[in-house]
Amino acid sequence: MNLNDAARELIGDGTDATLVTLNADGTPQVSVVWMALESTPDGDELVSAHLSEYRKTRNVRRDPRVAVTILGPQLPGQLARYIAINGTARIVEGGAPELLKKLAKTMLGSDEHFPPRDAPPGLLTRIRIDKVGGSEPWAS
Amino acid sequence: MNLNDAARELIGDGTDATLVTLNADGTPQVSVVWMALESTPDGDELVSAHLSEYRKTRNVRRDPRVAVTILGPQLPGQLARYIAINGTARIVEGGAPELLKKLAKTMLGSDEHFPPRDAPPGLLTRIRIDKVGGSEPWAS
Repeated sequence: MNLNDAARELIGDGTDATLVTLNADGTPQVSVVWMALESTPDGDELVSAHLSEYRKTRNVRRDPRVAVTILGPQLPGQLARYIAINGTARIVEGGAPELLKKLAKTMLGSDEHFPPRDAPPGLLTRIRIDKVGGSEPWAS
Repeated sequence: MNLNDAARELIGDGTDATLVTLNADGTPQVSVVWMALESTPDGDELVSAHLSEYRKTRNVRRDPRVAVTILGPQLPGQLARYIAINGTARIVEGGAPELLKKLAKTMLGSDEHFPPRDAPPGLLTRIRIDKVGGSEPWAS
């Protein structure tokens, strides 16, 4: 499925997101990652890049069920607003330095120091969006 | 177990946190909640308050395994810094308006409009901290 325009705008050219994967024993594993949004013929996908294998990527290879939260702008005196996404993830080999370069410009303001020039191809976590919750206007 | 001083300071008198619980089918359920930290004789506990039953509280009643992320201050040009906690949660009946009143002062700047005066006793999710990850200095 696709995100609505408000959600697409919130993610923009990249954002911090909490990524939840499932450990072998079923417990949730959490980390905060850079997340990009890409349109594909099959719908929107959330994409995160990794220069090497991590517990989260091993988890996705074993169990594709993931969840993601992205916080909206926090306004003083208001409740936290956020997107909560459930999705189905897959690991794609390679492509990490290219995506990290784009995200570094957004997230760090520059790709001068990251990713390193000799970065390995790494891997991507690509997440098909199955369900969107959280707060309006992103979940409306 | 207890959090270190840096993590205690980050949470302070309340913070937004992503709370992950497990649905009956094992998929992760995510939402963003207000989280407080309380010291108990058995160690630190993360505590969240709810005025009524939600999917997350029903999930905790069935499966106590939860995870929590809390974002640190985001500095321009730096990677996101955060605490990632795995814990064991339990539901305690009552006490929600009292905790929400305290948290509203921190999170909204006032408890004038929330919680409502006629709020029901509600319930608390109390999380024993089993593992701390994420970034230094909180995870050190």
